[in-house]
Amino acid sequence: MKIIVDGMGGDNAPTEIVKGTVDAVNEYGIDAIIVGKEQLIKDELNKYNFIYEKIEILNAENVISNDDDPAMAIRRNKNSSLVVGLNALKDGLGDGFISAGSTGALLAGGLFIIKRIQGIDRAAITSVYPTSNGISLLVDAGANADCKPQYLKQFALMGSIYTENVLGKKNPKVGLVNIGTEEGKGNQLVKGAYELLKNEDLNFIGNVEGRNLPTGEVDVIVCDGFVGNVVLKLTEGMAITIFSILKKSLMSSTKTKIGASLIKSELSEIKKLMDYREYGGAPLLGTRLPIVKAHGSSDAYAIKNAIRQLISFIDKDIIKLIENNMEQNINKMEE
Amino acid sequence: MKIIVDGMGGDNAPTEIVKGTVDAVNEYGIDAIIVGKEQLIKDELNKYNFIYEKIEILNAENVISNDDDPAMAIRRNKNSSLVVGLNALKDGLGDGFISAGSTGALLAGGLFIIKRIQGIDRAAITSVYPTSNGISLLVDAGANADCKPQYLKQFALMGSIYTENVLGKKNPKVGLVNIGTEEGKGNQLVKGAYELLKNEDLNFIGNVEGRNLPTGEVDVIVCDGFVGNVVLKLTEGMAITIFSILKKSLMSSTKTKIGASLIKSELSEIKKLMDYREYGGAPLLGTRLPIVKAHGSSDAYAIKNAIRQLISFIDKDIIKLIENNMEQNINKMEE
Repeated sequence: MKIIVDGMGGDNAPTEIVKGTVDAVNEYGIDAIIVGKEQLIKDELNKYNFIYEKIEILNAENVISNDDDPAMAIRRNKNSSLVVGLNALKDGLGDGFISAGSTGALLAGGLFIIKRIQGIDRAAITSVYPTSNGISLLVDAGANADCKPQYLKQFALMGSIYTENVLGKKNPKVGLVNIGTEEGKGNQLVKGAYELLKNEDLNFIGNVEGRNLPTGEVDVIVCDGFVGNVVLKLTEGMAITIFSILKKSLMSSTKTKIGASLIKSELSEIKKLMDYREYGGAPLLGTRLPIVKAHGSSDAYAIKNAIRQLISFIDKDIIKLIENNMEQNINKMEE
Repeated sequence: MKIIVDGMGGDNAPTEIVKGTVDAVNEYGIDAIIVGKEQLIKDELNKYNFIYEKIEILNAENVISNDDDPAMAIRRNKNSSLVVGLNALKDGLGDGFISAGSTGALLAGGLFIIKRIQGIDRAAITSVYPTSNGISLLVDAGANADCKPQYLKQFALMGSIYTENVLGKKNPKVGLVNIGTEEGKGNQLVKGAYELLKNEDLNFIGNVEGRNLPTGEVDVIVCDGFVGNVVLKLTEGMAITIFSILKKSLMSSTKTKIGASLIKSELSEIKKLMDYREYGGAPLLGTRLPIVKAHGSSDAYAIKNAIRQLISFIDKDIIKLIENNMEQNINKMEE
């Protein structure tokens, strides 16, 4: 297996990206192509030991930044590491692509260069969602702010396949984010999605409210990209806010300072648990070839984790499973 | 001033409702009408000291529960404390109404019996939103799952007037919940709302992301009822989840148990700070007469706090301020 890595995307590129890739190559035995400024990547690679033949460099002079307009950047910045990397993926030079760069540009590139799976109306950005009961997968995390019911159905199907096969949750519970648990609740979008979902061959457990997300009651959290993005950022904001209030409060007296010193390692463990950035990569779902988004602030460890997810994405042939599912759906409609 | 209290709505009715009302009458010098089963209310009132003439009882044999269909209950259950109370309000027997009963029924009753202010398309349920920087007001908290841009504009205007005059925040900062801070971000609804809001005479600070809500960067959080409800319940769920993980972790060893004992009072203070139920009542905005919703699990203290808000709602003549604002808007359109 050979993976293609965007060496220039992310806050810590290329240093941490290259290091994480080398670690993954050494640990998982895969081959890799790192895309980026040749000399820069070479200088980084020279720091490490690895089987020389297992890592190639594909030169790309430019980088797409988070400030660039995604669609425009993909169309115009042909020499960017993202576009060069995705074209390499399309041309079959590798089996999957990973980037810690602009999410919007990665999505736009996935759609323009790799294209959608037949039967999928919209590709989705997913996100790992940390809960007190392990991790869940949230689809869509922000790619599609305006959705139709069938998009949500497709997010559920793709998310379920990925969660079962890559995250290893047998028969994953799929929940629709809503403002009440009863059938018939919600806005027009989720009412329509509910009708579609209950007839699918899925472990659809129905509606799920905001309060049930952090407790991990569902494995696949289905919502439109607007709600998904608000959920993710609010979850992050709540964790940060509570810990910052806690910190301030624990520094308020000698007594609390002593108390704090006794629970320090437990606190940092909880903080880590609540931080979705700790969990490597999140797949794009709906493109014809495997693409994984690593968090922008990924260090080498996070990159290695994200590559592990990409390997599993490729290994389990998720794309094929989604394609088969879509074909069955199309056949069903034709019957 | 005379207020009308739904004596039978809420988890702790009538005991805590009556006690809270007596406390408010004694403390704030207002008069009150308590609506409910006469003998039950009388028995409760007999427990307390107060100026006899200041509290009347208005008999109502039935109660609307949270399980009843709101619109149906309002139309059919004419003898419920909610319907009797709202009719008393309409007939001018009191200056404002408060209930800890079904939110949906209170909203339906407000719309059917009290009616909307001219120029307001949809009445909104608000909620107090606790932040690390004091409390904010969230509009809409769940009344309107499907919205149009002008509804959000009206929520912003009404929320701003209430926040300035009742919550006492001068020139309150109004933020639109979105998935990015830049203008032009989001779904069709918020894009449209942004266009309207930037031309209003409001302290509109633009888009605000989920992560900026718990830090209190805006005083008036504007969103449709679907997003608002998810935000509220997720905020609650995150606080509960983090504290439950924390509790478990702090009980894991002797060392952490000692640590926990030293910070116990600080922890419970933070927990209280994050609990929106601690903050009395939330107004319905958009009806022609003042209506306040107290939390379903309100105890006497919460009821007294909610009544204090209702008093301020009446005292500051919020309805008149909203009406004036709407008239100006209508005049502007005609120019």
